[in-house]
Amino acid sequence: MRASLECIPCFIRQAMDACKMVLDDKQIQQKVMKKVLLATAEFDMNLTPPEMAQKIHRIIREETGCEDPYFDIKQKSTDMAIEIRDKVQSRVNSFEKAVRFAIAGNIMDFGVKSTWNEDFIMESFNKAENIAIDRDMIGKLYEEIAQAKTVLVLADNAGESVFDKMLIENFPGSAEVIYAVKGSPVINDVTQYDAERADIASVATIISNGVDIPGTSLEQSSSEFVDCFNGADVIIAKGQGNFETLNTCKLKVYFLFQVKCSVIADHYHYGLGDWMVTNSDITR
Amino acid sequence: MRASLECIPCFIRQAMDACKMVLDDKQIQQKVMKKVLLATAEFDMNLTPPEMAQKIHRIIREETGCEDPYFDIKQKSTDMAIEIRDKVQSRVNSFEKAVRFAIAGNIMDFGVKSTWNEDFIMESFNKAENIAIDRDMIGKLYEEIAQAKTVLVLADNAGESVFDKMLIENFPGSAEVIYAVKGSPVINDVTQYDAERADIASVATIISNGVDIPGTSLEQSSSEFVDCFNGADVIIAKGQGNFETLNTCKLKVYFLFQVKCSVIADHYHYGLGDWMVTNSDITR
Repeated sequence: MRASLECIPCFIRQAMDACKMVLDDKQIQQKVMKKVLLATAEFDMNLTPPEMAQKIHRIIREETGCEDPYFDIKQKSTDMAIEIRDKVQSRVNSFEKAVRFAIAGNIMDFGVKSTWNEDFIMESFNKAENIAIDRDMIGKLYEEIAQAKTVLVLADNAGESVFDKMLIENFPGSAEVIYAVKGSPVINDVTQYDAERADIASVATIISNGVDIPGTSLEQSSSEFVDCFNGADVIIAKGQGNFETLNTCKLKVYFLFQVKCSVIADHYHYGLGDWMVTNSDITR
Repeated sequence: MRASLECIPCFIRQAMDACKMVLDDKQIQQKVMKKVLLATAEFDMNLTPPEMAQKIHRIIREETGCEDPYFDIKQKSTDMAIEIRDKVQSRVNSFEKAVRFAIAGNIMDFGVKSTWNEDFIMESFNKAENIAIDRDMIGKLYEEIAQAKTVLVLADNAGESVFDKMLIENFPGSAEVIYAVKGSPVINDVTQYDAERADIASVATIISNGVDIPGTSLEQSSSEFVDCFNGADVIIAKGQGNFETLNTCKLKVYFLFQVKCSVIADHYHYGLGDWMVTNSDITR
């Protein structure tokens, strides 16, 4: 989907948050923000929101000299996710429950919400078992995974991966599972390092898509990733960024995410905060 | 006070709201936003937030050809304020209560909150009589007005003026009251027209400050206004924009406003949402 006018203030806010996280010097913060504003002024509004975010976060990393501004937040997210997982995993006794906790984990998104708020995160996990969700669509996904030889999971945020692992453990059948991460750090998206911290390697083959976009761009991705994408029997995309970049994908992609932005909510007639299980046969 | 980094995303959001309010054509919305982003990139961070807002809203008015984008919202605000005033005025039996309702009226601020929300507005009036407020400072202001020959009230938002009138009606003594409005439209700030709709002319002399800044700039104001400002025995400034531009004023200015922004709250150790009665002897 293309970016909307509403994306612009959101990007500027994201950029400011990242600047403040990495830089103490107000003069340098202002210098970086100036570059971000100039770049945003030149944006082609046919780009997807994650393609714009990619450009903004590249500026921040280049200007600050900090390769991974969200490193500490990602560490904290994974640590907290492991703690929560240890408390809830005895209750995850079905594929549906595993899907629910995998979507609960999607709350750990520091593009949308920039400050660490433990209550806000816990609220998501506390409602995981009861929130309204498309159970028929979960049933379809279950059937497809049961038949599949390969399942590709497109990762989203650090921390969330801990619950993606639990989801993969609850896959039916015996498909080979591939877990695709970002090629290099962007916001708090999962990289190889973060996926390994979440112990994904024990349940799936981790591959990089080769890109620093907080979503999935087949045009920009490595050929290894694109081959894997085109060859997978089932593709599961986690998070709103992957939805924004793959919602019109010709291949069927299942999306698991929390609707965090009113642009998407309005466009697809979802409610803000809804937990989505859908696929691109419906959204394209 | 100088603008902060935090002001930048807030301005961009304000600009987008104004664009959407005035323009239907997405291409033109994007063109205006591009100009706003470029102008914001060039901002001198020594400016006050209202000085920056002035520049942004000038761009919007020039690019859209709409002289008063908030005209409808201002009309609606004044109409709603009159309805509320008719319901509550029998309860306003003291200067303190009049101050409370004058601050309650400061909720009608479409720089900070861009969409019309009646519940949100009513909530402010419902708590007017009970919210914690500096009663000693109200007492000091009362004494000063009682002794004054001239009182200058610096207006803020349309709608709010209806309650400013009620405040003026409850002034002790027999001072001449002057009510200063903006020289031309900016956001939903009160102009001569809006003040007249609120029937201010029956209790005060309305003068224009000659400027389109959502605050008060003595450098930019007309000499008539500056003379009046320098000669007044008591100056009462309504709203956050006037606080942001006069907080370090050498003359004593009393401020009545709701704290709507975390930058000000943090800087002055107020809470977000606090109702402030203070003066520049304290804040300069």
